[in-house]
Amino acid sequence: MRAPSLALGAAAALCAAMPAAAQSSVTVFGVVDLAVQHLRGDGHLTRLESGALNGSRFGFKGQEDLGGGLAASFHLEAGINADTGRGRPNSINNVVETPGDFISFNRRSTVGLIGRFGEVRAGRDYTPVADNHTDFDVFGNSGNADSSLLTQALAIGLVAGRGVRTDVRASNAVVYVLPPDLGGFWGYGMYAIGENNNEPLPGFRGRDGGHRGARLGWEGAGLNVALAYGKSILASQDNLENVHLGGTYTWNDLQFFGQLSRERTTIDGVRHTNDAGALGLRYTIGVQAIKAQVVTSRIKRAGMESLGATAYALGYEYNLSLRTALYGAVVYVHNNARGTFDLGVPVAPGSSASGVQAGMRHSF
Amino acid sequence: MRAPSLALGAAAALCAAMPAAAQSSVTVFGVVDLAVQHLRGDGHLTRLESGALNGSRFGFKGQEDLGGGLAASFHLEAGINADTGRGRPNSINNVVETPGDFISFNRRSTVGLIGRFGEVRAGRDYTPVADNHTDFDVFGNSGNADSSLLTQALAIGLVAGRGVRTDVRASNAVVYVLPPDLGGFWGYGMYAIGENNNEPLPGFRGRDGGHRGARLGWEGAGLNVALAYGKSILASQDNLENVHLGGTYTWNDLQFFGQLSRERTTIDGVRHTNDAGALGLRYTIGVQAIKAQVVTSRIKRAGMESLGATAYALGYEYNLSLRTALYGAVVYVHNNARGTFDLGVPVAPGSSASGVQAGMRHSF
Amino acid sequence: MRAPSLALGAAAALCAAMPAAAQSSVTVFGVVDLAVQHLRGDGHLTRLESGALNGSRFGFKGQEDLGGGLAASFHLEAGINADTGRGRPNSINNVVETPGDFISFNRRSTVGLIGRFGEVRAGRDYTPVADNHTDFDVFGNSGNADSSLLTQALAIGLVAGRGVRTDVRASNAVVYVLPPDLGGFWGYGMYAIGENNNEPLPGFRGRDGGHRGARLGWEGAGLNVALAYGKSILASQDNLENVHLGGTYTWNDLQFFGQLSRERTTIDGVRHTNDAGALGLRYTIGVQAIKAQVVTSRIKRAGMESLGATAYALGYEYNLSLRTALYGAVVYVHNNARGTFDLGVPVAPGSSASGVQAGMRHSF
Repeated sequence: MRAPSLALGAAAALCAAMPAAAQSSVTVFGVVDLAVQHLRGDGHLTRLESGALNGSRFGFKGQEDLGGGLAASFHLEAGINADTGRGRPNSINNVVETPGDFISFNRRSTVGLIGRFGEVRAGRDYTPVADNHTDFDVFGNSGNADSSLLTQALAIGLVAGRGVRTDVRASNAVVYVLPPDLGGFWGYGMYAIGENNNEPLPGFRGRDGGHRGARLGWEGAGLNVALAYGKSILASQDNLENVHLGGTYTWNDLQFFGQLSRERTTIDGVRHTNDAGALGLRYTIGVQAIKAQVVTSRIKRAGMESLGATAYALGYEYNLSLRTALYGAVVYVHNNARGTFDLGVPVAPGSSASGVQAGMRHSF
Repeated sequence: MRAPSLALGAAAALCAAMPAAAQSSVTVFGVVDLAVQHLRGDGHLTRLESGALNGSRFGFKGQEDLGGGLAASFHLEAGINADTGRGRPNSINNVVETPGDFISFNRRSTVGLIGRFGEVRAGRDYTPVADNHTDFDVFGNSGNADSSLLTQALAIGLVAGRGVRTDVRASNAVVYVLPPDLGGFWGYGMYAIGENNNEPLPGFRGRDGGHRGARLGWEGAGLNVALAYGKSILASQDNLENVHLGGTYTWNDLQFFGQLSRERTTIDGVRHTNDAGALGLRYTIGVQAIKAQVVTSRIKRAGMESLGATAYALGYEYNLSLRTALYGAVVYVHNNARGTFDLGVPVAPGSSASGVQAGMRHSF
Repeated sequence: MRAPSLALGAAAALCAAMPAAAQSSVTVFGVVDLAVQHLRGDGHLTRLESGALNGSRFGFKGQEDLGGGLAASFHLEAGINADTGRGRPNSINNVVETPGDFISFNRRSTVGLIGRFGEVRAGRDYTPVADNHTDFDVFGNSGNADSSLLTQALAIGLVAGRGVRTDVRASNAVVYVLPPDLGGFWGYGMYAIGENNNEPLPGFRGRDGGHRGARLGWEGAGLNVALAYGKSILASQDNLENVHLGGTYTWNDLQFFGQLSRERTTIDGVRHTNDAGALGLRYTIGVQAIKAQVVTSRIKRAGMESLGATAYALGYEYNLSLRTALYGAVVYVHNNARGTFDLGVPVAPGSSASGVQAGMRHSF
């Protein structure tokens, strides 16, 4: 009933000039995952927690066949805290994090073009190195058994409280993904624009809020192995670099997981290096699965004593369908003398932390 | 085009082990309801108001048949102010309310398992006692004729300005619903975790932000009657308790509504007790309906004079379809000598308030 | 599993009284549009920008046939910054703008009734005069070539930094749209309620935050021409009035665009008048299009020297389908001696600004 679209003439001409357009299509999808957790540190806490098996979310995505081997794709995905119905943190400039009060497409917001050359997409997306951390963690970096507590301790800001906003995802990014069928090789790279400064930072070859990352893998014969690198550019502290090597090997009902990771940054003039590793196992028995993982981390600090911890986790899944699972996990974190890693309840240096969780995940 | 999912092996094994999975399914639903209201107190105000017949909202929901009498369900529902396109208040911890600026799944955010045992679900949901208030109000606790203005005066914070964030819904909750076919009986209970304190509050047997509630009803022979109880646990003031008895009786085109309610709390050391009641009538004439309701409340305050009010409301609906209705209502609130109940325009103690509204509701 | 709906009796009666209800239906739609922009002023900036061809968004809309020539409609549309996945600014009261951090249905949030009389709808919607600006700009008021930079300089707040929150859309609005088939004439009017004051403003015949606007056009013989007027009522400064005349003429593959616009307001006691105009051309060659536009503006200020600028823009589109386009544009803004119009990087009075962009838009 509004004024007719003024692009009508142009659209009509367009119609005549090209083959019948693909049907409009959008997929609405999501996950609602909630668990009861009981966490112990120097005190204890019982809570309802969202996303302890897979992050709760909803989104819209789709792909359009453009003919000639080309396709367009879009992906909008919003994280939610299903215990309260609210959103998850995001970052507009890759430097300052906004609290998780409001819903945004913080998990992914991209448009892309797919062809024989691979895929080019732009927007907000996962960093390659964070994907490596997630894919080679038997718990998928979710819930109280998340290995990134130790392997990404510097990025998350667990040491010295200074988190990096591109530890998992980056805004203002351009991503290039290699095409499939490269003899088992696969990979992608990300260049996120630092939009906070007009000029490169002194000595940094980049602008505040930028990120560069790449990931290269090979899959075949039951093996999947990948190396990834990420560099976050920050004016407020030093850059943070992360190298991660991970792999899985599947043998019948057993799947083995391995990770080696190094993080480096300088905080208040002190060089920090976090060397971490993890070994995991997933044993599938019909619709059930048992998961186990050991993660260890040692953070060296120039001129100071190092700190670290080792975490032991055991998990169980009962898959009621491909979309619905009941699950549980127990985790124990052993801090070394100066370690203060916790699962939600603070601990004094050297104290241990533990957690139990039981929940349900449903995908749609 | 991204790295193939590493859970592929596990998923393939899962596929082999279980019957064909149910198709992915999600329902997108909502309500857009807008009315023009003219409200009078000591001044007057004309405004466009959202949700005067049914709260404006959108959401995603679905159910998956898991076989063997089991089903999984999820429900994400976000309230909106359709006059501006923005969200509605929510509470992350059941104590502090966030303003209604941003959209969240504040109305409901749950995942659940349904079986012969009934349903267990978790997340953010309606409290049982709030449902009793809503279901036995002929205006469904919406718009200017909402009886909870008087029956939930203490929970809403209309007296002494101290609202309770679990007056309608609670975050961090686990809900159990009785199965159907119990000889007309139905009911459910809620336990919301108080996540603000590690230790029980002295004398409270609970943690700040917790809520306990239950509702039991019987339906048959045109009658539907239910008793509900709710207790909100708050460190910042006293707990708030609410008992509510309500019912409807349907006789041909007439439906009678009745409510009896008691709220109790202590504010700044003063015991408050709100005894309220309402009688309502809905007369259906084909696609039209006429609604009438009288609500009265008297709030006793230990050592102080009591206050109260009586509200008279008349409403009309013209249903253009099952999804679309035009409607209107007039309301008059008679405050007693110390009563200051208003409809959006403040009144001096003892002054009356009134309101007129006309609008349209569309469901999708 | 919850208590059966208490409106069941009423609904059953309703069912019997009316023909089979239309099926529930909702369309999920949206746009993801991202471009890399390089902008120059007194410095320079490279950034990923959302919506440089069409504003990025998602939404829900639908229409229900009510029989007898009547239909109900709803439309919820949320703007997004696809570079970060976040929302776009909104205004709850048409006076104060909220930042674009959170997602809301800021673009449109309406419910309406359509009949032989036309359409009446309410909620948040585009102002008629803003539609005129957009429809007769060959760049659709998007991206770095947006002509409203000059033609709506007073409303946007580019002069004296005082923006008007109804420059594009208004909350709390009632809109009436003329029916089709009026011999080529079409039009609509808007009345947005000022909800900030109970009493009319002295000398303003309106309440703070109100807006009145109308638009009348004629289309035929390749011509589409329309006149629009809008008045925003603001207590904090003077009202802002905008008159806009625009048109297009389509001749084979060529489409000509023209605009004439006057804005008037008083800021800090100084009368401002912005006289602006634009000429544009769109040349369609199969799936490609070339766009060119010149915009000029002169802002007279009582007792002060006037300021102004002229902007030259050239654009290109390659439509991969009706839904997907690759595009680019270059823009040059020539400021007169006191002009400070920029494209994102500030300029000193009289300095020029320029911008280049290349991007991809996908609709779903």
